Amino acid sequence: MSAERSAVCLTGPIALAMLDRVSIHDRLNALGITLPPATNPAANYTNYVVTGNLLYVAGKAPLPVDGKAPKGRLGREFTTVQGYAFARSTGIDILSVVNDALGNLDRVARVVKLQGFVNATPEFEEHPQVLNGCSDLMVEVFGPKGVHARSVFGATSLRANLPIIVDSIFEIER
Amino acid sequence: MSAERSAVCLTGPIALAMLDRVSIHDRLNALGITLPPATNPAANYTNYVVTGNLLYVAGKAPLPVDGKAPKGRLGREFTTVQGYAFARSTGIDILSVVNDALGNLDRVARVVKLQGFVNATPEFEEHPQVLNGCSDLMVEVFGPKGVHARSVFGATSLRANLPIIVDSIFEIER
Amino acid sequence: MSAERSAVCLTGPIALAMLDRVSIHDRLNALGITLPPATNPAANYTNYVVTGNLLYVAGKAPLPVDGKAPKGRLGREFTTVQGYAFARSTGIDILSVVNDALGNLDRVARVVKLQGFVNATPEFEEHPQVLNGCSDLMVEVFGPKGVHARSVFGATSLRANLPIIVDSIFEIER
Repeated sequence: MSAERSAVCLTGPIALAMLDRVSIHDRLNALGITLPPATNPAANYTNYVVTGNLLYVAGKAPLPVDGKAPKGRLGREFTTVQGYAFARSTGIDILSVVNDALGNLDRVARVVKLQGFVNATPEFEEHPQVLNGCSDLMVEVFGPKGVHARSVFGATSLRANLPIIVDSIFEIER
Repeated sequence: MSAERSAVCLTGPIALAMLDRVSIHDRLNALGITLPPATNPAANYTNYVVTGNLLYVAGKAPLPVDGKAPKGRLGREFTTVQGYAFARSTGIDILSVVNDALGNLDRVARVVKLQGFVNATPEFEEHPQVLNGCSDLMVEVFGPKGVHARSVFGATSLRANLPIIVDSIFEIER
Repeated sequence: MSAERSAVCLTGPIALAMLDRVSIHDRLNALGITLPPATNPAANYTNYVVTGNLLYVAGKAPLPVDGKAPKGRLGREFTTVQGYAFARSTGIDILSVVNDALGNLDRVARVVKLQGFVNATPEFEEHPQVLNGCSDLMVEVFGPKGVHARSVFGATSLRANLPIIVDSIFEIER
């Protein structure tokens, strides 16, 4: 990789992500993301299960803000812009779990599927714009390998009144 | 295939679907279904991901009616009979995506799983009868290979106030 | 296995489950669980699909109590403690389906994923404590192989006003 090309990469995280030779660790650095320790499961289960080449991650939620878990509903306590940030924060916790599972995010072959549960009012209609916070992160971090199938819906309530939970499935390099 | 046997098939789409030698294209014709182009993803993701022998399709919704996406809730704006038709229409969009993914619906080895999110009132109780619109289509089109595992629930809201979204997983012929 | 060790096992179901040589049938006996016949699918689909080493089970619900399916919502008709019992009962129906699918629960290599849909009020916050009823059962029956990834959310309504439905995926021994 020439110095010039490297310089281009550093000014554009997405462009950076397109370069196969750059480690995911370097991409995270370029994006200014430091992975915190993965949060613990909320109950009697585990953060992930590997079966064959698939990694199933437990439903994760936004990281605490100022030490407190966010509480509230999209369309009432929170705007779509705030929801986007919560979905991105959820994605960071998901990445921490994947890193724990694989030891190294470079072992991710593909982000297969995200499913978002948005704590929402019956009138809320912008669920996709909320989940984009998590989807955009996956593409920034993994490049084309981060482009995934996806679905999202409004939940009538979530544990501890969290604003969003995201389920995810990853494919692991053979 | 004898002319007599063929004649029997043409009078019964389900019977037709049981005949292994008939292409899925012919089954669709017999059912009077023409696949429209697959709808685009609603946000930053893709319509499908293939991993191993599994095809994960993004959450799809009913096709537009008279150029407009249907909007409303089961148990309020829409009846169960209307919901059934929306679920069938959603299934047609799913088939269009699978056709895009595989080039040919004959490559489907099995419909593995459907999960239906029904935009519903808290009082609604007929979610299975709604999702049957999609399930019946899969069995009509794929015969025994179309019989799937399934689940369905009431969502408090869906994007753009759509009446239903269906997630799906298919197994691909090796 | 020495007689002494065996005696320890029989007094503790969880400890028993840790011993690889004990059949799942014996573990169920030690837990006082007799599997009833699996309930039928509620509509046009099947109880399970096997693809590769994965077993997808259709969404299952609590077994009838005194011949009647429970009806109601967490946070209104039912308490979290009642919900826990419904989730455990749902797990027993799931085990019946897995037994039908594999002929023998010893063929389960891992409980991969549970997803719980809790029929809940907008104010309900204890979804994990409800789903624990199913999760605890899986760990009691399968030991370490029963520890799974998981997610849970509040549904605005469920078929026939059931209090909970659980989706599940199992890995089968090669």
